[in-house]
Amino acid sequence: MPLILINFKTYLEGTGKKAIELSRKAERVHRETNVSIGLAPQYADITSLANTVSLPVFAQHIDFENAGSFTGYVLPEAIREAGAVGTLINHSERRLKLADIDATIARAHELDLVSVVCSNNAKVSAAVAALQPDMIAIEPPELIGTGIPVSKAKPEVVSGTVELVRRVNREVTILCGAGITKGEDVAAALRLGTAGVLVASGIVKAKDPYEVMREFADSMTK
Amino acid sequence: MPLILINFKTYLEGTGKKAIELSRKAERVHRETNVSIGLAPQYADITSLANTVSLPVFAQHIDFENAGSFTGYVLPEAIREAGAVGTLINHSERRLKLADIDATIARAHELDLVSVVCSNNAKVSAAVAALQPDMIAIEPPELIGTGIPVSKAKPEVVSGTVELVRRVNREVTILCGAGITKGEDVAAALRLGTAGVLVASGIVKAKDPYEVMREFADSMTK
Amino acid sequence: MPLILINFKTYLEGTGKKAIELSRKAERVHRETNVSIGLAPQYADITSLANTVSLPVFAQHIDFENAGSFTGYVLPEAIREAGAVGTLINHSERRLKLADIDATIARAHELDLVSVVCSNNAKVSAAVAALQPDMIAIEPPELIGTGIPVSKAKPEVVSGTVELVRRVNREVTILCGAGITKGEDVAAALRLGTAGVLVASGIVKAKDPYEVMREFADSMTK
Amino acid sequence: MPLILINFKTYLEGTGKKAIELSRKAERVHRETNVSIGLAPQYADITSLANTVSLPVFAQHIDFENAGSFTGYVLPEAIREAGAVGTLINHSERRLKLADIDATIARAHELDLVSVVCSNNAKVSAAVAALQPDMIAIEPPELIGTGIPVSKAKPEVVSGTVELVRRVNREVTILCGAGITKGEDVAAALRLGTAGVLVASGIVKAKDPYEVMREFADSMTK
Repeated sequence: MPLILINFKTYLEGTGKKAIELSRKAERVHRETNVSIGLAPQYADITSLANTVSLPVFAQHIDFENAGSFTGYVLPEAIREAGAVGTLINHSERRLKLADIDATIARAHELDLVSVVCSNNAKVSAAVAALQPDMIAIEPPELIGTGIPVSKAKPEVVSGTVELVRRVNREVTILCGAGITKGEDVAAALRLGTAGVLVASGIVKAKDPYEVMREFADSMTK
Repeated sequence: MPLILINFKTYLEGTGKKAIELSRKAERVHRETNVSIGLAPQYADITSLANTVSLPVFAQHIDFENAGSFTGYVLPEAIREAGAVGTLINHSERRLKLADIDATIARAHELDLVSVVCSNNAKVSAAVAALQPDMIAIEPPELIGTGIPVSKAKPEVVSGTVELVRRVNREVTILCGAGITKGEDVAAALRLGTAGVLVASGIVKAKDPYEVMREFADSMTK
Repeated sequence: MPLILINFKTYLEGTGKKAIELSRKAERVHRETNVSIGLAPQYADITSLANTVSLPVFAQHIDFENAGSFTGYVLPEAIREAGAVGTLINHSERRLKLADIDATIARAHELDLVSVVCSNNAKVSAAVAALQPDMIAIEPPELIGTGIPVSKAKPEVVSGTVELVRRVNREVTILCGAGITKGEDVAAALRLGTAGVLVASGIVKAKDPYEVMREFADSMTK
Repeated sequence: MPLILINFKTYLEGTGKKAIELSRKAERVHRETNVSIGLAPQYADITSLANTVSLPVFAQHIDFENAGSFTGYVLPEAIREAGAVGTLINHSERRLKLADIDATIARAHELDLVSVVCSNNAKVSAAVAALQPDMIAIEPPELIGTGIPVSKAKPEVVSGTVELVRRVNREVTILCGAGITKGEDVAAALRLGTAGVLVASGIVKAKDPYEVMREFADSMTK
């Protein structure tokens, strides 16, 4: 079953009450189409989203350090108790050191949190694959937020990623993202061998997020 | 009116349901003694604490960047909508670049969030004072978590801080912290010219947090 | 005696042999005008510049950590033995944490290295002044490399810095920088109360660096 | 031909004149045994070492950014012109973000600098291998500087690294390090399938570095 994973970033359109409204629309699309939709809101909104909708909620980042004297850190146990079932790791706007990605995947695994590690090209995706996360999301940073879809503008990056990743890891789920705004972009992503999309402004900042999510989901079930 | 500001760090004793329990005890002490108590839980717990108790809630950190493409960041608007009224800035476990402290204080001010900037010695406290935050919390990092109270083991650091800070800024509220575990440590802090304490393990990891908070509050009202 | 401090950054025009050529031109201007000129080349070029010219050489950054297991760090003792007499600290392209600026100034002081701490606005300059470095260089980052001179485009930033800094520290030497490309920019900087300029592309990437340095020096001695 | 790569870190015993003395001893061992020895001194010492001895000199770190406005950065072109032929990347004391390791390897390759990427365990080594550096140096951080040799205390880490790396990359040269102080540690490393050792305090802080280097080299040529 393909997946639409929505990164709320720190957009005001995806903060607080608006995060809840957006999540309700996502839940409606899920009910209508049965396509899986994941929500990655800000830390402070995890509890309210998890309490409001039945969709899986992801953190945008976790810190790998164990509970203790880490003021301002994001404790995996805390976001799990708040209702998250997984987390983004190493998003291009929150890049991590290599050894810390490894440690963070281990921490996520320890707590049964789904680990979705972002990468910026095919080679780096293969490196991530060697660390055995649950999912990899390939997002060329130069396309993020542009509306130029990676799956159509740079199909070779997506297919090349799938190929390199599969040599190292046969099980990891592969998503792609950056510039995805239309159903045809999503369909192209699936044709290139991915299992879904990681999307942010294309949905969160859309005039009618319900319409966009519905178009995405429809393109996945045809 | 003196202040007890409790930093929950990422202690399991201050996470999720346990954060709520601890907050209820703090609220009880506040009701019994009328001493101001602030709570600085993890981001994911801000909403539930703000919805449960009537005490002021602080974030442990905010990022100064405006709303936008900042995956994994802590948007000040988000923690404010979640119910926070202020934030720690530059805690010794989450040190910031100097220019970013300035920018973060400005963002807090813009949103009417109380800014509490941590510092590690008298000279750095004076530097912080020049940036005009609402509060400064002096905490020698080598004493944090030790149970050796700064106000008794290094009184000259606290009095020296008060002196240097006052040359630069007559209005900022000065707190002190590190190693505070007893009422007499709190009383010593007030005698040295501070307006209260920033405390973490001394309360959060205490066997009986209510008793410790009550002792602290009583020592402030004698 | 006013100072021209030249930041070579990582410009190819200021690397290796070209760094030596540029330094010889600077030395010639110094001999002709008696204006003080400091050179801040890359780490790898400190030795050859210090061995070639008699001008004071500065590092672009030092790390405050003591000698030990710090692979890839810049040990103050190493750059001193290489021939540097001072260092930039906290340049806008290499911002440091507040507590680390304090520690770095202390390390520089310990080794008799002149500490030149960069700042981005008047308030931050006052904060730096509280840390008692030898020099402060105010450089609004938005003007760096633009050719729009801070001393003419934003004179109030420079004069405001001088005013705020002097309330905190009467002895620190104040430089200004950003966008300085002409003698009149330098003259304006001195009129605003600074003791000289920190300059990079205006000299290093100039078609005729000798001419620019000579013009700067002449404007300082009129 | 096996390799001994010596990391001078920021040890005073490996700084300035002492770095030159140590390098001369290393050159003598190379002449006597024909074993390859590489030297990784601090940035400021690259020029003098490259001018003094005929052994290959490595930087301890480079920044991937192109020439430009990057005050305090380590420009690859600068260290190359100073005489370095390669560089350590991602040492455990100077960890990099995953995407930056990829970019740094590309920059090293562009300038014909040998890239030696450090890693902390077998899985991370496989990830590094996917990025196709020239060499990988596996160093469990918990053993660095202890005198407990990775090749004898944790042989399974070394052999496991060789196995996982080879699945991803058949050409990369594999070194190991951490706790190596005796010839038998070096011999064990070679038996486990590595091509040499990355060593720091075991040589640099030895009472008689010549003796230790000679013992290492002899154990490689038996």
